[in-house]
Amino acid sequence: MGVREPRAFAEELEHTDGGHVKLFSGNANRPLAEAVAKALGLRLGEATVERFPDGEVQVRLLESIRGDDVYLLQPTAPPVNDNLMELLVMADAVRRSSAKRINAVIPYFGYARQDKQTRGREPISARLVAGLIEHVGVDRVITVDLHAPQIQGFFYHPVDELSAVRLFAEYLEAKGFTRNAVVVSPDSGRAEQARRLSERLELPLAILAKRRIGPRETQVSYVIGDVAGKRPLIVDDIISTGGTIRRGVEALVAAGALPETIVMASHAVLVGPARENLAHPAIREVLFTDTIALNPSLGYTILSTAPLLAQAIQRVHTNQSVSVLI
Amino acid sequence: MGVREPRAFAEELEHTDGGHVKLFSGNANRPLAEAVAKALGLRLGEATVERFPDGEVQVRLLESIRGDDVYLLQPTAPPVNDNLMELLVMADAVRRSSAKRINAVIPYFGYARQDKQTRGREPISARLVAGLIEHVGVDRVITVDLHAPQIQGFFYHPVDELSAVRLFAEYLEAKGFTRNAVVVSPDSGRAEQARRLSERLELPLAILAKRRIGPRETQVSYVIGDVAGKRPLIVDDIISTGGTIRRGVEALVAAGALPETIVMASHAVLVGPARENLAHPAIREVLFTDTIALNPSLGYTILSTAPLLAQAIQRVHTNQSVSVLI
Amino acid sequence: MGVREPRAFAEELEHTDGGHVKLFSGNANRPLAEAVAKALGLRLGEATVERFPDGEVQVRLLESIRGDDVYLLQPTAPPVNDNLMELLVMADAVRRSSAKRINAVIPYFGYARQDKQTRGREPISARLVAGLIEHVGVDRVITVDLHAPQIQGFFYHPVDELSAVRLFAEYLEAKGFTRNAVVVSPDSGRAEQARRLSERLELPLAILAKRRIGPRETQVSYVIGDVAGKRPLIVDDIISTGGTIRRGVEALVAAGALPETIVMASHAVLVGPARENLAHPAIREVLFTDTIALNPSLGYTILSTAPLLAQAIQRVHTNQSVSVLI
Amino acid sequence: MGVREPRAFAEELEHTDGGHVKLFSGNANRPLAEAVAKALGLRLGEATVERFPDGEVQVRLLESIRGDDVYLLQPTAPPVNDNLMELLVMADAVRRSSAKRINAVIPYFGYARQDKQTRGREPISARLVAGLIEHVGVDRVITVDLHAPQIQGFFYHPVDELSAVRLFAEYLEAKGFTRNAVVVSPDSGRAEQARRLSERLELPLAILAKRRIGPRETQVSYVIGDVAGKRPLIVDDIISTGGTIRRGVEALVAAGALPETIVMASHAVLVGPARENLAHPAIREVLFTDTIALNPSLGYTILSTAPLLAQAIQRVHTNQSVSVLI
Amino acid sequence: MGVREPRAFAEELEHTDGGHVKLFSGNANRPLAEAVAKALGLRLGEATVERFPDGEVQVRLLESIRGDDVYLLQPTAPPVNDNLMELLVMADAVRRSSAKRINAVIPYFGYARQDKQTRGREPISARLVAGLIEHVGVDRVITVDLHAPQIQGFFYHPVDELSAVRLFAEYLEAKGFTRNAVVVSPDSGRAEQARRLSERLELPLAILAKRRIGPRETQVSYVIGDVAGKRPLIVDDIISTGGTIRRGVEALVAAGALPETIVMASHAVLVGPARENLAHPAIREVLFTDTIALNPSLGYTILSTAPLLAQAIQRVHTNQSVSVLI
Amino acid sequence: MGVREPRAFAEELEHTDGGHVKLFSGNANRPLAEAVAKALGLRLGEATVERFPDGEVQVRLLESIRGDDVYLLQPTAPPVNDNLMELLVMADAVRRSSAKRINAVIPYFGYARQDKQTRGREPISARLVAGLIEHVGVDRVITVDLHAPQIQGFFYHPVDELSAVRLFAEYLEAKGFTRNAVVVSPDSGRAEQARRLSERLELPLAILAKRRIGPRETQVSYVIGDVAGKRPLIVDDIISTGGTIRRGVEALVAAGALPETIVMASHAVLVGPARENLAHPAIREVLFTDTIALNPSLGYTILSTAPLLAQAIQRVHTNQSVSVLI
Repeated sequence: MGVREPRAFAEELEHTDGGHVKLFSGNANRPLAEAVAKALGLRLGEATVERFPDGEVQVRLLESIRGDDVYLLQPTAPPVNDNLMELLVMADAVRRSSAKRINAVIPYFGYARQDKQTRGREPISARLVAGLIEHVGVDRVITVDLHAPQIQGFFYHPVDELSAVRLFAEYLEAKGFTRNAVVVSPDSGRAEQARRLSERLELPLAILAKRRIGPRETQVSYVIGDVAGKRPLIVDDIISTGGTIRRGVEALVAAGALPETIVMASHAVLVGPARENLAHPAIREVLFTDTIALNPSLGYTILSTAPLLAQAIQRVHTNQSVSVLI
Repeated sequence: MGVREPRAFAEELEHTDGGHVKLFSGNANRPLAEAVAKALGLRLGEATVERFPDGEVQVRLLESIRGDDVYLLQPTAPPVNDNLMELLVMADAVRRSSAKRINAVIPYFGYARQDKQTRGREPISARLVAGLIEHVGVDRVITVDLHAPQIQGFFYHPVDELSAVRLFAEYLEAKGFTRNAVVVSPDSGRAEQARRLSERLELPLAILAKRRIGPRETQVSYVIGDVAGKRPLIVDDIISTGGTIRRGVEALVAAGALPETIVMASHAVLVGPARENLAHPAIREVLFTDTIALNPSLGYTILSTAPLLAQAIQRVHTNQSVSVLI
Repeated sequence: MGVREPRAFAEELEHTDGGHVKLFSGNANRPLAEAVAKALGLRLGEATVERFPDGEVQVRLLESIRGDDVYLLQPTAPPVNDNLMELLVMADAVRRSSAKRINAVIPYFGYARQDKQTRGREPISARLVAGLIEHVGVDRVITVDLHAPQIQGFFYHPVDELSAVRLFAEYLEAKGFTRNAVVVSPDSGRAEQARRLSERLELPLAILAKRRIGPRETQVSYVIGDVAGKRPLIVDDIISTGGTIRRGVEALVAAGALPETIVMASHAVLVGPARENLAHPAIREVLFTDTIALNPSLGYTILSTAPLLAQAIQRVHTNQSVSVLI
Repeated sequence: MGVREPRAFAEELEHTDGGHVKLFSGNANRPLAEAVAKALGLRLGEATVERFPDGEVQVRLLESIRGDDVYLLQPTAPPVNDNLMELLVMADAVRRSSAKRINAVIPYFGYARQDKQTRGREPISARLVAGLIEHVGVDRVITVDLHAPQIQGFFYHPVDELSAVRLFAEYLEAKGFTRNAVVVSPDSGRAEQARRLSERLELPLAILAKRRIGPRETQVSYVIGDVAGKRPLIVDDIISTGGTIRRGVEALVAAGALPETIVMASHAVLVGPARENLAHPAIREVLFTDTIALNPSLGYTILSTAPLLAQAIQRVHTNQSVSVLI
Repeated sequence: MGVREPRAFAEELEHTDGGHVKLFSGNANRPLAEAVAKALGLRLGEATVERFPDGEVQVRLLESIRGDDVYLLQPTAPPVNDNLMELLVMADAVRRSSAKRINAVIPYFGYARQDKQTRGREPISARLVAGLIEHVGVDRVITVDLHAPQIQGFFYHPVDELSAVRLFAEYLEAKGFTRNAVVVSPDSGRAEQARRLSERLELPLAILAKRRIGPRETQVSYVIGDVAGKRPLIVDDIISTGGTIRRGVEALVAAGALPETIVMASHAVLVGPARENLAHPAIREVLFTDTIALNPSLGYTILSTAPLLAQAIQRVHTNQSVSVLI
Repeated sequence: MGVREPRAFAEELEHTDGGHVKLFSGNANRPLAEAVAKALGLRLGEATVERFPDGEVQVRLLESIRGDDVYLLQPTAPPVNDNLMELLVMADAVRRSSAKRINAVIPYFGYARQDKQTRGREPISARLVAGLIEHVGVDRVITVDLHAPQIQGFFYHPVDELSAVRLFAEYLEAKGFTRNAVVVSPDSGRAEQARRLSERLELPLAILAKRRIGPRETQVSYVIGDVAGKRPLIVDDIISTGGTIRRGVEALVAAGALPETIVMASHAVLVGPARENLAHPAIREVLFTDTIALNPSLGYTILSTAPLLAQAIQRVHTNQSVSVLI
């Protein structure tokens, strides 16, 4: 499905019964918000979203949103707590300003990896955050590639989850990276995303598993499945420090894979030694989307989710199916 | 940790400040409830849990539970809707009868596999059921081997999740089944449980993946990892129709595994052609627990969870850590 | 008030601002759902509402309902727990699919007779069920002849309660059954419905009371009021096993009533020995509505509620008063 | 079951684990609160419950209730809105002062007759009031003879409903009023209470029905059942203006009953022409309880509910069954 | 901003998508409701809002409001509990009658002065009342000059707070009362309202503080700031008994102020000795608004809030900014 | 009231029925938490409260708290969003670990100054934060000197608010600073705290008001009341940038006050140019408490709230009145 002309969007958006569409952005990823607004033929809503001298979030909407269908675009990327509070405070302001409906557009949903108790006496922070977001009155969430599909169930309200898998698949095919390739899941506990990519591209699947060894419980990766002489296409949802990826690439090389790995992930969290880890010589290219603001000069390929998010917003607002986007 | 003497349990249970422990059973698995009660040195609470002629659940508690710490044992196994409604109606009666606390002991949590939307416009029934259980006033859930660990996060209240993995590991080692063996996960999307067993037993891991082929989208299994000449130990949380297991065993045989597979699962749902599927000649033994009532004459090995559940109840009631059981 | 032309309905339904009307049916009473859809000039919404092999309800909506005004038609008749869970799971799917409003059309509301504690330590299951229905996000209930009018108060949201009394009255008059007749309530605790019918038909009223006698507490009926030489018109909301009706008819005959009783009830639950009990020679005709699917070959007169339900849905959707239907 | 010695009560109340019992009274019926406190061997909790000059309720607790099991005694009798607000404001103060549990003792539950919609577009005020009481944090309600048993279901939390029926039965038997008597229900829609009294006293039952006649829709009563030559024992839950009773007595006399009616009701609301209506010459004696404060000089027989309420509080606090009182 | 022509209002109100505007009035201030309706070119909605003989609020809506945008105008002035219950019962009826949205127009918000705990073990009744109003389903509140601005935060839903400050300022200027004047706040704890008036009129500010003196803790007022030879303009939100005002006027006179004080307050609660206190010879004129119904013969100047409230309703309904009114 | 011996505390704390007291600290102010623990004779609970590499809060409780009365000490001082999220995530872990009760000890409550809408379309962040804290299951809040007393009403649950006013008063008297002094409130909108101090010390009161002047709306302070030749004692709840204080000191000097001002505030937020502003030559001494961790080398006098907080915790846990501390 192609992106429609912005002008047509804007006209349609103005003439529905559910009030005007208003798109506001926090500070987490303004370039993405502006790209989405442009794709919709809208300008971003005017609002003050700043900090008081003591660091408290300061929000004021500078235009009326009474009766409007409001979209708050804010990935909860690092600094995650500040970005989350911005989202919550904005939603509070929007609710008290009598919006018709509050939609949180959270391209990257932080705290998602804390989706279960791995041991006793831990929080389930992803559910906690979902609860906070609903507590302030958010009616719907639009997001991209949740870490686990069950996180949708942490919400009571509708969640429209988009995926970057199609973007990756189209790019890989266009670049010819799918020849003699094998799709690799970096985690034995969540190979479903890789499985879908392998099915779409009609490629075999391999899985990286981890084992703790020795007295100091060092974690090593090993390959399950056949990768010898093939180009690995590692696909993950999030790359944070890149440590798992680096260990995986090393295990792939050791198992005879070609040293031309393509690494791709929806969300470029990239903290700590991420740059070093992704600079491994057996990695040929790294793909991300722009759910998290990313410096283009880093040399990673960035596929934009703005057209996808714009279509989702347009379809949500005009009561058309969003499933067709997925 | 060994099971303590029932008498000591009972004495301790009587002398805590939080009221008496009362254990009631629905109709889903009375033998398990009686075994748990016996392990605790208690008798089951007296209650009518029947059906009116039109099939509506009829509940009446025949003893006072005012101020007591009440445990309702009811796996939501088939007939799942009847068993679930029994649990909800019992909880309503218990709440209105002024229990101090309502603990739902749900050894098998039905609807767990509906934990996400696989396509658009689907329910997330596992979250729905969690919500219903909390809506009636249940303060805590004690369960065994949830289909996905994220289901804990579908609850707002504490969930104490026990596991049969240790029971399986001890049995396999006692029987010598771990020699020259490989642990096999029947599903590429959820290999974590198998990974934990493989780590505990220090055995390699293989994974069964599925692929849809041909014009009629038939699903076939194939093996990822090396199983040739090894004894497969397939471990799953639930066996329902057994179709996945049968296809997996066939793929393992085709990949050169020994035709002496041990199949094990925490929850014996066993519907439709399950018996036929589990009678495959390459399956040497099938292990289940008793979270779901199971006819012993079927020839499956049954490991009882009653001691584990009794310890959990005793520890919950006396405010001791339950983590040590996991 | 007559039923309008379906075509006009459909046009009106399409042109309101609140989204399209979508009517979905569970498995409890598809013929009624189809009749209502036809009266509205609509087709039933396409959805999978089935069972997984283990009996869990499986729902998938096959068409977009985003922004629509959705009506889920499902009487919670036997098998009551399955039908109730179907309704709840459908509502969960509808809510997560972004319906504008969820209306549960529950022509027969099961568990209604459990509307109070008759003794201590019982549930109030009718309130429990109302709570479950609201918990999943149902915004409104449309129903017919609740067992007790207070059940409306178990809901926080609006309940539009329709009545079959007018259907019965018109039929009785058309057939000439009102001559020399007496309206009889089968229960001294809830004679209001009979009183309204007696007032509408300008007929006297008699009441059947029950008394427990003897060491085994057998329950016998006796007549309060004058029925000698008159034709009894027994009116109840639900006939389940028919035992109360049979005992009542015997008491009426003993009190000198004509052996030409007309028995009528809104809801044909009909379980156990109902057919035998309703085959009493002093019963001339039995009237039911179709709130519960009923085999026409049983020989009972069936008055359809489809026109009434269709009008109610049409009026709810177009913001017209529903009171005029009552 | 006899009333125990106050001293024993007090000792037992002090030594339970659930904090101290504290009984506070609003202004609706202080004599009853004092009688209950005396029966429990307690003094009433000290609190300011007054009005500011503009009529707003002013509450301040003058003693600590931190961690205590607090009982607020306040029938919501006329002036019903003031008494209800006193109860709500007291509960707010108690909750904010860290009570362990808040029990509302509401011997007469006002707004109970608004328990359903008799026509469209009406409130269900009894449910509304139940909701308000739970909203402020009340954990349990203790009450006497609700207008309809379904009102228990308007609450989510436990309701312990006591009854004056036994008090009436014992008094009637002691006075010899049961000879040659017939129990009469004043309302065809709610004859259950009368039925229970008739069963307990082994007396026949008659029912008063109402009919609207003539162009001005005057309502007249008529008798269903045989009362000729018998002494009527009319039992109702509430007597408000007494109009229904007066019309009923006239209908009974017209039907040949003895002019020696005993009229009894749990709750003496007594407004408007109540005194005149109850002064009918065919009424020999009028019985009430003291759930509503009543001037003894009016000449009505008053049976105290204080022992019953004291026992209920004592049993609730010490986790003993309350059902035995009913 | 001028008041628009009623006719234009009415036309606009009829043609929005959010249903019709319906304005209903309780008994607290019908003249104001009628003035607002007139300003909107509407007639008041027809409803019975009366009392049963026992004082319970009786409500019935006499016209359909299904799908409408309903405004309930009811200041919770004395008798505060009756007026509050009227509002709650009306809202319950409106919600059960399927209004699209419920707006409570509460020009005077009673219980506002109980907005904090001044000592321990007190209620926070203003928050309690806000909670009750939201509990019954009110979606928005429109009010005038809350006692403390934080009370907005007691509500979760939007509160549109209007102010009489502009009305006072315009009147004072038109009458020439601002020459040689000083604005006086009667309470050191809440001088903000006076500060805003002083800023608007560019006048200096003085503050009246209270001190308790002597063994009997008599409270006396004293002036902070310079008032000698100036005309005091005392501005408060509420005048109840007028005691604070009288003591303040005396302190002003003692401090050398001109004996020509103008006293003004938004809300004329006026109970107890208010008339006497406001008849102090150093008071030249007393200004109130009509948020509370006030007998014009008392001689106070009354500025009507009807145009302001009508504009707010019109703007809320048509999704225009209300901030411009403030 | 003196601080009791730690040993006696600890013994008492161990022997109550409500489980053990467990005190955990986030990272906001560990020295205060340790001082409180020491005063209680306890050790701090063991827990991991750290950050994942991407900044997400990571919590794990290292000891069982099942059935315990848990206190989480965490002022929400800068970095406010991180500290708030730590508190929320800790509370989630504690709730899921089956604590009996969760008490948030928040000596400094961040976001408190956002307690109202100063203009339209703003959030009320203090209410938002209160809601988040209650949403995660906190049962009670213990805090010190809230910015506005109404913030207590933003919570539904009990708030025990302690005050540093007594600490300041005792210090000022001990140092002889009260001779020839005047208490000064730095804000005309909230002079109540200063009024209480002035009453306690029997000193006169002056108020600093602000006015915006000129085309660029510069804000200047001016003094209301008489300060000439006196020592000003400025008391505020929070000092953030210190700008208000500096302008106030300048206005006081201009009004003839002695250049020996004592500045005191409960909460030392101290951001931006705070140090410079507080280094004004007319300020002789600056007093803070330790609700926010403060570097002692800065030269400010620090009065510890640890004894007060310890007493409050001890009294809350043992069900004694906390009011006596205030």
